[in-house]
Amino acid sequence: MHGLASYRRIVLLTEGQLGLFTSKTAACLLRYRPSDIVAVLDSQVAGRDMRDFVAWSPPVPIVASMADALPLRPDSLFVGIAPVGGDLPESMRRPIREALEAGVSVVSGLHARLGADESFRASALRSGAKLADLRVPPPPTIATARARQLRCRRILTVGSDCNVGKMVAAVELTRRLRERGHDARFAATGQTGMMIADSGVAIDAVVADFAAGAAEELVCAAADADYCVVEGQGSLSHPAYSGVTLALLHGTCPDALVLVHHAGRTNFRAEPCWPLPSNIALCHAYESCAALLHPARIVGVALNAAGADEETVRNERRLLERQLGVPVADLLHEPGDELIDAILAACPPPESRA
Amino acid sequence: MHGLASYRRIVLLTEGQLGLFTSKTAACLLRYRPSDIVAVLDSQVAGRDMRDFVAWSPPVPIVASMADALPLRPDSLFVGIAPVGGDLPESMRRPIREALEAGVSVVSGLHARLGADESFRASALRSGAKLADLRVPPPPTIATARARQLRCRRILTVGSDCNVGKMVAAVELTRRLRERGHDARFAATGQTGMMIADSGVAIDAVVADFAAGAAEELVCAAADADYCVVEGQGSLSHPAYSGVTLALLHGTCPDALVLVHHAGRTNFRAEPCWPLPSNIALCHAYESCAALLHPARIVGVALNAAGADEETVRNERRLLERQLGVPVADLLHEPGDELIDAILAACPPPESRA
Repeated sequence: MHGLASYRRIVLLTEGQLGLFTSKTAACLLRYRPSDIVAVLDSQVAGRDMRDFVAWSPPVPIVASMADALPLRPDSLFVGIAPVGGDLPESMRRPIREALEAGVSVVSGLHARLGADESFRASALRSGAKLADLRVPPPPTIATARARQLRCRRILTVGSDCNVGKMVAAVELTRRLRERGHDARFAATGQTGMMIADSGVAIDAVVADFAAGAAEELVCAAADADYCVVEGQGSLSHPAYSGVTLALLHGTCPDALVLVHHAGRTNFRAEPCWPLPSNIALCHAYESCAALLHPARIVGVALNAAGADEETVRNERRLLERQLGVPVADLLHEPGDELIDAILAACPPPESRA
Repeated sequence: MHGLASYRRIVLLTEGQLGLFTSKTAACLLRYRPSDIVAVLDSQVAGRDMRDFVAWSPPVPIVASMADALPLRPDSLFVGIAPVGGDLPESMRRPIREALEAGVSVVSGLHARLGADESFRASALRSGAKLADLRVPPPPTIATARARQLRCRRILTVGSDCNVGKMVAAVELTRRLRERGHDARFAATGQTGMMIADSGVAIDAVVADFAAGAAEELVCAAADADYCVVEGQGSLSHPAYSGVTLALLHGTCPDALVLVHHAGRTNFRAEPCWPLPSNIALCHAYESCAALLHPARIVGVALNAAGADEETVRNERRLLERQLGVPVADLLHEPGDELIDAILAACPPPESRA
């Protein structure tokens, strides 16, 4: 817990990187904490409004500097990007320093630790501002697959690639399960999810030997809930991150899996020349790996329709339904009742077990 | 490269933990660098000879302290254990301090960094002794599956559990391939392998996001060889380490897999109440995951016969041959020609490709 929920006047820092892909952290905060955002800081597009860039944004001004943001009485500056490699762009150093000097707390989910920077630390100390690095890993733990014995039913969103919407799907599934009267918790496994949920663990920053252990701790902390919906990471087919994905699968021992796919995506986003494996082969691999410790099936698909035309979405939906034989839903635009039904059928609430 | 090959008068530190399982690092060094070991330091069994504990050991005295070891003119003290969690046992602090004070370099593969200890660093600085922490990770790299385009043929040993002999199998396969005239390199991925090969990376100590990247760098460094035999880690079914295993599989994009199994093992060593999945299901999962990026088959089995009676070994061998349809060899006691033939058939040397 970093006390992130207490920040109600957030400036999102995207300096030079505004756009859905590089600044997905900012875009997600605008979706799930819209009333807590007072400004976006990006000198490249200052003077405009976030509604020009993010369809679901409330009216939020874009400012050029911390000096321009201060009249809005911000309580925090959230680094709003999640770049590959997780380094701090040089252009972000100045607004971060200025925020800390002005007593505005800074929250970062980069791999690079702001708290390791002497000058940032000194500025924070002088002003009393806080400096939260969300990717600092928890104490090392060795997983023992004890998650499979938990009372709470565990649902994991698994991707066909990076940046397909696994976090959004997990948040939306949690909301739907709550609407049906279940005690469902969202378990964040990445920095953006943590900024929304004010808890969780940045699983990709944990030393490889302890990654499954960190995931196990996460679901054990939700043991008293009926459902724990775990945000997936990467994809089992991703050249760089598949190990993180599997650590999450075996650390949380899910009872059901929901595949998340981005309509129209045929190639890896990070390696545009290489085709993604078929979703049939991918789902088969997910289920084969799950079965080694705790069997779980792909019970449905969350189809991310962002940027895709209607025909593409319709065709992908039909294809996925036919290939996988499970309900497909665009959870941002549809109730997804069939998908929720499929989850509940695969894992009934714990009360009804006896 | 840590210059570990230059140490020719090594004391192995096992203090209180002598025995094959906890001190497998010591046992492996006695197997592969027998002429470089001058003593084992373990006050619990001092006065005896290593041949009483490790069948393949040359005559090596066991001493009670560094003071007793110094007359043997050691140039280094290697921490000879690989405990779960990788902490430094309290009882090992004194011999390490005494070694550093006496100018004897210390090599450690623990997760705990000896170099982070002020007093160890100060002692080393005063005497000029070196302090090598093998589990310090390399600079962060994001994998891109470029290993699959390398000239060298990649062979990965994959396990049915931890501590089944994946490193030994990789070393033995490398030796056999060399005996057949091929330029084969052993690629170490754990601390013990690094102590033998004087190169490699402790993959389990890398931050999860960068683990596949570290594996990729490792095989790229052997690109000019004909064969690169990669030491596997963990198992795809291991509750804690499966993520490391998959990072290695996708980072190295092997052309062939060799399953390593310990005869008679039916349950996880770390979780003795839980049965291992069947080797059929496991091999299927390995191949399904490999196929997502670069297809590779299980082409043979290295059967570790340690501690098993002849009948068990014979039965396991028959079962594996029948279930998997591939050659099975105990590489410490047999030439394993059929297994090498199977590897060469699955991946002919690069020269013959054209």
